[in-house]
Amino acid sequence: MTEPFVPGPRARIAGRPGGPLAGLSFAAKDLFDVAGFPTGGGNHDWARTNPVPTKHAWAVQTLLDAGAELIGKTITDEVSLGILGESAFDGTPLNPKAPDRVPGGSSSGSASAVAQGICDTALGTDTGGSVRVPSSFCGLYGIRPTHGRLPVEGMMPQAPSSDTTGWFARDAATFARVSSVLLREPIAAQLPKRLVVAVDAFGFADPEVAAALQPMVDRLSRLIGETREDLLAPQGLSVWARAQRTLQPAEAWATFKNWIDRDNPRFAFGVARGLVLGSMIPAAEQSWARLMRQEARARLAYLLPPGTILCLPTTPFPAPRKGQALSVLDPLRDRITCLCAHGGLTGVPQVSLPGAMVDGLPVGLSILGGHGSDAMLVAVAQAMEEPR
Amino acid sequence: MTEPFVPGPRARIAGRPGGPLAGLSFAAKDLFDVAGFPTGGGNHDWARTNPVPTKHAWAVQTLLDAGAELIGKTITDEVSLGILGESAFDGTPLNPKAPDRVPGGSSSGSASAVAQGICDTALGTDTGGSVRVPSSFCGLYGIRPTHGRLPVEGMMPQAPSSDTTGWFARDAATFARVSSVLLREPIAAQLPKRLVVAVDAFGFADPEVAAALQPMVDRLSRLIGETREDLLAPQGLSVWARAQRTLQPAEAWATFKNWIDRDNPRFAFGVARGLVLGSMIPAAEQSWARLMRQEARARLAYLLPPGTILCLPTTPFPAPRKGQALSVLDPLRDRITCLCAHGGLTGVPQVSLPGAMVDGLPVGLSILGGHGSDAMLVAVAQAMEEPR
Repeated sequence: MTEPFVPGPRARIAGRPGGPLAGLSFAAKDLFDVAGFPTGGGNHDWARTNPVPTKHAWAVQTLLDAGAELIGKTITDEVSLGILGESAFDGTPLNPKAPDRVPGGSSSGSASAVAQGICDTALGTDTGGSVRVPSSFCGLYGIRPTHGRLPVEGMMPQAPSSDTTGWFARDAATFARVSSVLLREPIAAQLPKRLVVAVDAFGFADPEVAAALQPMVDRLSRLIGETREDLLAPQGLSVWARAQRTLQPAEAWATFKNWIDRDNPRFAFGVARGLVLGSMIPAAEQSWARLMRQEARARLAYLLPPGTILCLPTTPFPAPRKGQALSVLDPLRDRITCLCAHGGLTGVPQVSLPGAMVDGLPVGLSILGGHGSDAMLVAVAQAMEEPR
Repeated sequence: MTEPFVPGPRARIAGRPGGPLAGLSFAAKDLFDVAGFPTGGGNHDWARTNPVPTKHAWAVQTLLDAGAELIGKTITDEVSLGILGESAFDGTPLNPKAPDRVPGGSSSGSASAVAQGICDTALGTDTGGSVRVPSSFCGLYGIRPTHGRLPVEGMMPQAPSSDTTGWFARDAATFARVSSVLLREPIAAQLPKRLVVAVDAFGFADPEVAAALQPMVDRLSRLIGETREDLLAPQGLSVWARAQRTLQPAEAWATFKNWIDRDNPRFAFGVARGLVLGSMIPAAEQSWARLMRQEARARLAYLLPPGTILCLPTTPFPAPRKGQALSVLDPLRDRITCLCAHGGLTGVPQVSLPGAMVDGLPVGLSILGGHGSDAMLVAVAQAMEEPR
């Protein structure tokens, strides 16, 4: 069992008394600044070569102001480049629902801490799936909000056109309380009226995953009403993934290249490889990927008018076993990207709901809405949890 | 000042009494097995994921049997991939001749230990210049023997078709004593009769380096007799370097890829980048590089019949400053390779002689001979040191 917290003195800060989150505890992925503590970014050479912040990140300050207590900073995949949650520097945080499996990443420690019951909620980041994937693997509620909705001050960037601040919770009520504060909007009572089932995404998942999610889809359909099947990505989930895997690594390289050039930091080979390949993506490929991003945005605008949500499997399979070779994990990561790429490409909000199990392992059902529909998705999460 | 030794318990083993190296102390680059001590290879994840050796490397055993005392294992660039001697894991060993400069690598700690007078000699390895370059930068005698001449048992491989075991000394007498033992051949009294001055290599070095080496070349010419100028690499020093930079990284990738796949080890970015690029070299490029290797071998067979040696600057400049950015160091490394590539490509022996200084910084003059002429080169080193 690996601690979900980063090594060193634990960052503990009491919340402001009397706020709407009074009594709740939270942890922050080590990509968020906490004044007086190094922002490690999951890479010891990042912590060593960057100044200790003097100001809390916006999301940390907002939760503290609302009364939640910070209880620590959590392990993350290096500079948020990872989707599985195995860290060469800080170890792999425990997935309590599947101890021989990865927790998912890059918000691995935040998901682990919440899933273990160490805190009530935890901040993560989601660029290419880093909140959604650990939510699915650890059986948690998790949100990737509308891109650009939350201020990102004090959050270490990776690929700014895709980066978002997300969070986890074990139950829908806590999830809604925290969401209301961070979204700065009450959670609506009104639910959407139309549901789209993304048949391409369900077909792309393992058959056992699609089968395990079917009762949740049925319940969602009864909850929402009008239900139809459609394609999420007519151009191909793998084509969207290709566009995201072109834009995101090129942007990550732009984010980190000056630090890398100056300090020649250490990385796990798989992370360095991604950065090297990111540095080599031709401009023409990036131009194509930007066009495909426009197509993906147009597709989601068409699929998701106000009052409509879409559902898909959060991940194509439950958490893989820990400690596997890169040559085993690389194709798994690429398959995960096929079900996550729409987030970074289009910026729409997504909530992953727990509830399904495959061979005793959790797997999440995700719901998407149009830009700004974050609170509506949280309301659906609440309604789905209520017994009916 | 950084210790030249790897962290952890110091490997100390007395030599066999009464041998030809009795009274001498030596250190071994952390690529050589010493029974009971991890072979760290300059990368903490290598040490962690590989078994502790139970048998000394051939070169270590040979020096111990000859009476030399092992006093420690020395810092190396990661898995010998580096030419400058800056280590992200163990620090940069001191270059006592130029404390603000790199010591050269990858046999950085061995060169540092000898240059500091901590031991009399030290084992290194030279694949692409890893003994020759630190010899030049630290003002030492150093040899890259004929490829394949010394058994490599217990020496961590990098690119086996170029890997060699080398060693350093501060004075020619010690250099000759150690060389005689490791070459298993007496150092001949007879000197070569013809000297070739590699005008392309002198032209490629900084003008200050060529000027500083000129008195040594003049003395060598008087010592040898018949002297002529010729090209080392009519196809281009940069073309030979390109061939070496094609073959060596591809071979290094083949050496390390299974470990990398299994353990996803950490590397400094510059090292990981070299491995990634090594993994991507097209087969057609490798085929071309093998043809150029044949041309280079033919060229050196033509230039270096028995009784002929060639001289060139060991490095195109003295040691660069420590702590510079990758974008500054990359082109320097590529220039160094232009004066070193012939070693890995052709396997001829080379000795670097100290004696010249540029702005107070050492720079070496190298002598090359045909395959198997190692002892003759050492004899020249001795003759060059004697006052005349």
